[in-house]
Amino acid sequence: MTATSLVGVLGSGQLGRMMALAGYPLGLRFRFLDPSPHAPAAQVAECIEAGFDDPAALRRFAGGLAVVTYEWENVPVTAARALQQFVPVYPPPQALEATQDRLIEKQFFKSLGILTAPFAGVEGPEGLKSALGKIGSPAILKTRRMGYDGKGQVRILSADEAPTAWTSLAGAPCILEGFVNFSRELSVLAVRGQDGHIAFWPLAENLHEGGILRRTIAPAPDVPLELEKQARGFATRIMEALNYVGVLCLEMFQVGEHLLANEMATRVHNSGHWTMEGACTSQFENHLRAVMGMPLGSCEARGASIMINLIGESPPRQTVLSLPGAKLHLYGKEPRPGRKLGHINLHGADLTEAQDQLARLARAIGEPVARYVR
Amino acid sequence: MTATSLVGVLGSGQLGRMMALAGYPLGLRFRFLDPSPHAPAAQVAECIEAGFDDPAALRRFAGGLAVVTYEWENVPVTAARALQQFVPVYPPPQALEATQDRLIEKQFFKSLGILTAPFAGVEGPEGLKSALGKIGSPAILKTRRMGYDGKGQVRILSADEAPTAWTSLAGAPCILEGFVNFSRELSVLAVRGQDGHIAFWPLAENLHEGGILRRTIAPAPDVPLELEKQARGFATRIMEALNYVGVLCLEMFQVGEHLLANEMATRVHNSGHWTMEGACTSQFENHLRAVMGMPLGSCEARGASIMINLIGESPPRQTVLSLPGAKLHLYGKEPRPGRKLGHINLHGADLTEAQDQLARLARAIGEPVARYVR
Repeated sequence: MTATSLVGVLGSGQLGRMMALAGYPLGLRFRFLDPSPHAPAAQVAECIEAGFDDPAALRRFAGGLAVVTYEWENVPVTAARALQQFVPVYPPPQALEATQDRLIEKQFFKSLGILTAPFAGVEGPEGLKSALGKIGSPAILKTRRMGYDGKGQVRILSADEAPTAWTSLAGAPCILEGFVNFSRELSVLAVRGQDGHIAFWPLAENLHEGGILRRTIAPAPDVPLELEKQARGFATRIMEALNYVGVLCLEMFQVGEHLLANEMATRVHNSGHWTMEGACTSQFENHLRAVMGMPLGSCEARGASIMINLIGESPPRQTVLSLPGAKLHLYGKEPRPGRKLGHINLHGADLTEAQDQLARLARAIGEPVARYVR
Repeated sequence: MTATSLVGVLGSGQLGRMMALAGYPLGLRFRFLDPSPHAPAAQVAECIEAGFDDPAALRRFAGGLAVVTYEWENVPVTAARALQQFVPVYPPPQALEATQDRLIEKQFFKSLGILTAPFAGVEGPEGLKSALGKIGSPAILKTRRMGYDGKGQVRILSADEAPTAWTSLAGAPCILEGFVNFSRELSVLAVRGQDGHIAFWPLAENLHEGGILRRTIAPAPDVPLELEKQARGFATRIMEALNYVGVLCLEMFQVGEHLLANEMATRVHNSGHWTMEGACTSQFENHLRAVMGMPLGSCEARGASIMINLIGESPPRQTVLSLPGAKLHLYGKEPRPGRKLGHINLHGADLTEAQDQLARLARAIGEPVARYVR
């Protein structure tokens, strides 16, 4: 075996950073490309600071790479396609295309027979009015592009809020989605190898606030086999339709005994961070195994995990580290409101034990974590 | 909490590399100093390529550091003391002093009432003859300095081999050690915080060949409580005498119900690699917690672990990764005879399960691993 293979990653945020940390023990090396300086991954690997649309930078980036992958789904598809001339790119660029536009994404789900909330494309204020007539209110108006962590979306509680909502999104092409009265949010994390083999981690239960993931419990409690099968079926259809290679996450709403697909991430995902200590193989390691054509590792969970995001500010490091069983993962970022600075993974032999850990963490660092105790 | 603290590490081999990978999630950053280019740690962090005796390089290295530690025990003590003018150095330089000379080390053990094999200092061929008269043969002649992985030592089976043995070590000051008829090799891994608190991982059972560690089983099977207490007592005396901060490993021989100290490593140690997945907190993380003045993490073992060193050559990566439960740790080094290229951690709920994993690994990659099945 050669001593090292070089993996190129588009984007250099915390997902890329954790990917590199998981890949070094496999004998991989990393090169990142990102326009922003001081990125989390740049602290742990080579990083080319340049725009994704800079052809010279793309060529420099591609030199000597074994494979290109990405850790941000809004990388321009043109950049991914340009890189394909030099080096394999996984997940395939058509996966990026399918997820960068919320309307195309929902239509893609529909074409595969995957249930979603009712939706309609919206091109202007008149279109919004007619879409509201069809879907009813309350509903959510979202920009078709560049939305993540709750950005680029606004709730419409009644039809008379439509003009304000439209203006607040600055006239960008939108999608209107019917409000779903869900019992909880679940996500399915899957990985598909170059040979088409698919492995699944158990479903995770997520809690968002202000559009940002706050807490994940995995394996999600009280999941009937039928529900797990539905979720795996959705992910399988998506990955096979896209000839997908790598980790994919599908976020869903549970409504009664059914799942509605909300959105997918064609990359490793925040709701999969629990796998770092909570599963036999982490999402980061298995993503790399997949894109490098290596055999996939077991996705089996070890006991029960709770993942808590650290957003905007971090509790004192000493306090977190004094809790046995709490695993701290910081991203090397300066605190800023709304910013994901790190996460804490809590573990127990079963969910009761993990909940005890969370209660202990809540006592030690107080709000906001206390309200995530289930 | 500040976003990152910078840790300086003297030496940039695989131990430093794994330390950095364990430290990034704690929000630490790393700077290494090492005279050799293409070192394993240089692939994952900033590395200053300069001699340990270069005052300008030491000053440049020290700039902005929160703490200095080391991953190689033959770092010049003068360098460690020079750095102490600028920044705290842990473990303390007197620990380096106590371990760099095998004779001083054994005398130090003796002064603490820690049992060892019989030993005597040897200054010349005449001294060797009289030492052999005192200790008897077979015995082992070792250079006092710069010995590791079985280098700088030669066995003397009978007195008439003395002149050849002496010549083969090129007339360096030596120590003669009596041959110990031990039942097995054990090591105790401990960590001491800045507040004097000490935590212990369970004893590990080691197998060396040609002076190089090949296999570790942890927790070591069939360890009577009394033996564990002896080992912990030895480590405690050593760490308290040195006012030690960080991870320390003491390698011992078991002879009947007694332990004889063989040598200590004032750093993280190869026989502690099983802690990466096999313990609640790895030796690398706890070493960093200690030298940074953070609370220590739990050293409790998770099930049973077997660590196999990859020496000289690595089995095909695909083969190792196709074994569920095998965790591959490569160091990014080019293969070379006798070189430690990586290790594999195997895990099971109990030793039988871990042994099954080893048997499976042996079937997949054959010799030399097959002979490490217990």
